[in-house]
Amino acid sequence: MVQKPAPDSTRRSEKSRRAIYDAALTLVAEAGYAKTTIEGIAARAGVGKQTIYRWWSSKADVLLEAFLDLSGQYAEAVAAPEESQYGIPDTGDLAADLRYVLRATVDEIMDPRFEAPARALSAEGVVSEQFAQQVVSRLLEPQLQLYVQRLKAAQDAGDVRRDIDPRIALELFVSPLAQRWLQRTGPISYAYTDALVDYALNGLAPR
Amino acid sequence: MVQKPAPDSTRRSEKSRRAIYDAALTLVAEAGYAKTTIEGIAARAGVGKQTIYRWWSSKADVLLEAFLDLSGQYAEAVAAPEESQYGIPDTGDLAADLRYVLRATVDEIMDPRFEAPARALSAEGVVSEQFAQQVVSRLLEPQLQLYVQRLKAAQDAGDVRRDIDPRIALELFVSPLAQRWLQRTGPISYAYTDALVDYALNGLAPR
Repeated sequence: MVQKPAPDSTRRSEKSRRAIYDAALTLVAEAGYAKTTIEGIAARAGVGKQTIYRWWSSKADVLLEAFLDLSGQYAEAVAAPEESQYGIPDTGDLAADLRYVLRATVDEIMDPRFEAPARALSAEGVVSEQFAQQVVSRLLEPQLQLYVQRLKAAQDAGDVRRDIDPRIALELFVSPLAQRWLQRTGPISYAYTDALVDYALNGLAPR
Repeated sequence: MVQKPAPDSTRRSEKSRRAIYDAALTLVAEAGYAKTTIEGIAARAGVGKQTIYRWWSSKADVLLEAFLDLSGQYAEAVAAPEESQYGIPDTGDLAADLRYVLRATVDEIMDPRFEAPARALSAEGVVSEQFAQQVVSRLLEPQLQLYVQRLKAAQDAGDVRRDIDPRIALELFVSPLAQRWLQRTGPISYAYTDALVDYALNGLAPR
């Protein structure tokens, strides 16, 4: 079955949406969250303010969706071929799977195209509880739930202790990377995230 | 030997310094880092601008020292009696010592007097590499080095694997708390930090 081309209005909308996302991410990276306005995004995207308000209810809303779109592009790019959900691979080797996804995260957070808007939005979340709650519910928690699913599968396979809470356990390797990135407390590398996986799975105490 | 009272000028200086610290922390908590100025701090503290410039070279400098002073007050308040350096206790029970210091950290970061300025300064560090480097070198890294020392003592005592890097290992229990606080990714409690200590020391994999 041959798919019909999208009608002109849909293609125009998609083009506007893309221009608005690009403008929103560029502006917030340059000026910070507080100084980014719907007016500024509209002007930079070459659309009317009403075009933005037709699709989004607030500045927070358009910025978050623009950033979700960017994150989605990364998720597609690093997705393991066997993973239709862009989740975390399950090859049966938990350590290897975690090393893989954390290395991909290193690539993402070190990419300047990602880093500048991500920092502007993260900084706003540190001071604004309301904005942080949106970032958590729409972006961070869904990502963390992928680790929860993978750790639950590992519990079923006998590779992770049954008495641990996967929602806390994932933070042993995710949060150190997040803190180094957010607070710049240390260098970020594959060797570093590989060490986190080893330490978290095997523990710091001698066996 | 009886200590002589401080000369009037020293007492006046100490009083001004205290007023400047209080003004700096109140202003940054209310207005954020970008909108806080030396002029505003001076006006609120009831001192001349030149009084501030006599002691500090920049806004970043006075804000950081004000915050270091506040953190120092907490460190004194929670210091274990046996610890003259306000470091991490070494009772010989690593898990208990880590639970103790992380619970004290929970108390600190949940205290509104600490939280508001800490969030304003942390947010600036997320977007400004230069400011973050000062926060890390003057505040965060010295605190993290206390954990490094405690983990090295634990390695000597045979309680921690000798092949781990203590500077990375400490992040398994410190960074999850930091991320929950910075990004509001989950609730913070003693039960949570106790679990982090258990998971980090004993590992997620079955023994």
